[in-house]
Amino acid sequence: MNILDQIKIVLIETSLPANIGSVARAMKTMGLHQLCLVAPQKAIDEQAVALAAGAKDVLDNAHIVTSFDEAVADCQLVIGTSARLRHLQSSLIEPREAGKLIIQRANLGKVALVFGRERVGLTNEELLKCHYHLNFPTNPDYGSLNLAMAVQLASYEIRMAYLTEQAVKNSQNIAKNAPLAEADFPNAAALEYFYQHTEKLYTALGFIRNEAVMLKLRRLYQRAELETNELNLLRGMLTAVEKQLK
Amino acid sequence: MNILDQIKIVLIETSLPANIGSVARAMKTMGLHQLCLVAPQKAIDEQAVALAAGAKDVLDNAHIVTSFDEAVADCQLVIGTSARLRHLQSSLIEPREAGKLIIQRANLGKVALVFGRERVGLTNEELLKCHYHLNFPTNPDYGSLNLAMAVQLASYEIRMAYLTEQAVKNSQNIAKNAPLAEADFPNAAALEYFYQHTEKLYTALGFIRNEAVMLKLRRLYQRAELETNELNLLRGMLTAVEKQLK
Repeated sequence: MNILDQIKIVLIETSLPANIGSVARAMKTMGLHQLCLVAPQKAIDEQAVALAAGAKDVLDNAHIVTSFDEAVADCQLVIGTSARLRHLQSSLIEPREAGKLIIQRANLGKVALVFGRERVGLTNEELLKCHYHLNFPTNPDYGSLNLAMAVQLASYEIRMAYLTEQAVKNSQNIAKNAPLAEADFPNAAALEYFYQHTEKLYTALGFIRNEAVMLKLRRLYQRAELETNELNLLRGMLTAVEKQLK
Repeated sequence: MNILDQIKIVLIETSLPANIGSVARAMKTMGLHQLCLVAPQKAIDEQAVALAAGAKDVLDNAHIVTSFDEAVADCQLVIGTSARLRHLQSSLIEPREAGKLIIQRANLGKVALVFGRERVGLTNEELLKCHYHLNFPTNPDYGSLNLAMAVQLASYEIRMAYLTEQAVKNSQNIAKNAPLAEADFPNAAALEYFYQHTEKLYTALGFIRNEAVMLKLRRLYQRAELETNELNLLRGMLTAVEKQLK
């Protein structure tokens, strides 16, 4: 398996099919092939195909789904991009660092890199479902990257990290190395289940009375990148409390 | 003087005005403004302006000349891009390295980064007039970068090198800067109190039977670097459960 195939580029409600075509080309030049479209506003058209050029296969194989959750359900790491990120200081990541993290985690499971709508980006709700928020180091006087350009830059950094890893692996293979035992991470569906379980229980306890609590908890646990054994522990704690209620 | 203004992007005999517009936008997002067009095949048109978006000033101020020599005459470093570079092994340079070199040399004089024709790139004669030849680390199965995408990637690496240089300069000047206003973090005593509260409650619930649980929780929350408001929230949740027990 090629670990680049563990990485999917997710586009949310893209308005212009031309952008989707350019994204496909940008991805393939950097060796990425998994494209997922969430509720594209218009169908792939001739212009999209023309702009995809030699990456028509990426376009043809694009996975089309109806919701953000569906797109990232099988992913253990979700990185979202957005320009308005002042309130997310703690989870900001730059493209170079993101490229390294994505390659590292693609060795363990699937990774999603999510790009928002052309004009308005990702919603706050969508941003909260991301572990990290990718921020491009653009010109403060004019930082308006075209969607496909943003995908091109991120894909380039992923490729650079991939090539570095390949070079390291090649040099290690000479000495026959054993794989490292690394942490296992839950997918987005498992995390979502945990959040809903928490919300239900603490609403029943009378503690949760508005959405602010869950927003804070999601932000905290997404930032921490919960490992599977930690998620199991937190779920066990919820169950322990539930037993007392009965 | 901003050293980014010492760097010019030179486009040779570009066929599509749309590409010139996209190049202008790509440049400006990374803080570059000097665009030089050598014998463009068609005049700037409406589509070029539309694609330039907020970088119309770059387009308006583009310098139009008739020959490669004229474009690079005032430059002390000339870097050319091309896909067919087998015969130029000794002068090949990758984008990251090129970014660093360009910034270093822009402190001393003008630098040109030259992009060839959409279909055929630079001629051998033109390549020979370049000090270095920029080569993008693309997918060997499909390396066809759109012209504006190539400019975007190169401009990004120039910006990254620029920001690194600025950071070094600033850290040399700093020493006497004021602390940043950041999130408020609890002290160790407050965290310790929270851990003990958690341990007491979940031991009473029969969930904690050995020390492994608290070790895992401590590791998780230390890693997350809990903020004060998050700690208050988690303590509120403990209290909500305690109330039920009574």
